[in-house]
Amino acid sequence: MSGIDMAEVRTWAREGGAIARRHFNNVAARRKRDRTWVTQADVEIEQFLRERISARYPDHGITGEEGEPFAADREFVWSLDPLDGTDAFVDGLPVWGVSIGLLRHGAPYLGVVALPMADEDYWTDGQGNAYRNDTPIQVSAADTFDRNDWILVTSRAHTDYTIRFPGKTRSLGSLAAHCCYVARGSAIGAVLGYPHLWDIAAGFAILNAAGGVAVTLDGDLPPIPRLFKQSKAARPLLVTTPALRDALLPLIEKRGRA
Amino acid sequence: MSGIDMAEVRTWAREGGAIARRHFNNVAARRKRDRTWVTQADVEIEQFLRERISARYPDHGITGEEGEPFAADREFVWSLDPLDGTDAFVDGLPVWGVSIGLLRHGAPYLGVVALPMADEDYWTDGQGNAYRNDTPIQVSAADTFDRNDWILVTSRAHTDYTIRFPGKTRSLGSLAAHCCYVARGSAIGAVLGYPHLWDIAAGFAILNAAGGVAVTLDGDLPPIPRLFKQSKAARPLLVTTPALRDALLPLIEKRGRA
Repeated sequence: MSGIDMAEVRTWAREGGAIARRHFNNVAARRKRDRTWVTQADVEIEQFLRERISARYPDHGITGEEGEPFAADREFVWSLDPLDGTDAFVDGLPVWGVSIGLLRHGAPYLGVVALPMADEDYWTDGQGNAYRNDTPIQVSAADTFDRNDWILVTSRAHTDYTIRFPGKTRSLGSLAAHCCYVARGSAIGAVLGYPHLWDIAAGFAILNAAGGVAVTLDGDLPPIPRLFKQSKAARPLLVTTPALRDALLPLIEKRGRA
Repeated sequence: MSGIDMAEVRTWAREGGAIARRHFNNVAARRKRDRTWVTQADVEIEQFLRERISARYPDHGITGEEGEPFAADREFVWSLDPLDGTDAFVDGLPVWGVSIGLLRHGAPYLGVVALPMADEDYWTDGQGNAYRNDTPIQVSAADTFDRNDWILVTSRAHTDYTIRFPGKTRSLGSLAAHCCYVARGSAIGAVLGYPHLWDIAAGFAILNAAGGVAVTLDGDLPPIPRLFKQSKAARPLLVTTPALRDALLPLIEKRGRA
């Protein structure tokens, strides 16, 4: 047992989402993007999460997108993305989330991704099961795909990748959400590009517990701590299912920089 | 004046959205897609809208994605997409909507697009103003774009189009919503592919009122009734702003079918 009270962590994620929702309409009403203002929302949520975590788990480290790392060399380190999908949030789109991951020895262990606009949270306690709200989820059980299936891609896929996938592609604006949609079996894969560790700390734990895998585009499965140098992935990543990995990989090709 | 009570039409759109939301979690909980069941939701909303419209505007025609056309040769014809973005809806994604458009002489005149998961509706009364909820909206005022700007694309853009746009692309799953995001000035354009008239009947009216334009990918601006043969666009469409149209068009190319 991890000794982590998941019900409480889920509450934190949803409370973080409620903070974001309070800012959401104000942002959407602005004509011009005000990055400073949004960063203020990000920082407000991260500060809230850090306070809760450090009070409850004083022996754990904390890293996050906004604040300074704290004791990042501990066995257990929380990895926070207070607002994953900030651009989508600023633009008034509904796919963005609060991501709270717990790393153990640098690898995703458990976590929660709350998607406030859908009133749902995805989570795992690190014991092998993943959930959407209180319903167990699993990746797609399919062993093949056709034009009705879909994958998620980054917002620069049209210039960065050659994609020969015969189905559909979607790009919704939040990598944490993209991991969850694969974990629940809606999408059969997601091209994540070069995520930061905080983007996927919770998402990868959830995905693993739901039966998914993360691989580099050349098919390698390196240990996560080795893949993330200074918190950013060194090679482009794909998440999918074990059964579909070998069929999907050849259809997604990183373009060279001419 | 159109003589249409827009407050009432907005209520219908939101009530249609509430019907959809009641089905939403049930759909999301299913492992395997059950198209029949979803079609039942679609039909339920369209029937609700037809009843309201025919009681209030008995002299108007009605067409829709699900039901039979009624008096489709009248001056005023309502064009309904009870659930635009059905695939996204089935997959548990939050971008889908209820689209109620009114055509006059076959061209988009006024309409409402309700996006229930974002608790918002976009609308115009055909008198030259567009709104998100009660706030006036306009397309982007920019006269140039860079890598921070974004456009919306279809879910088959990776195989159907060559896109050299230097910014970001998103594909959210609902053409009606895509039109609204351009109308509000978040996205600077949207490649719509070959929409059906009901997909964009409301969206085009809103977009026009917000200052946007719809063009074919070869830069033509045909009258809408001539472009839609048997309710489907005969040529691929782009919506954008007048100032950006000429810069955007050369960056989006329909691929030939080899």
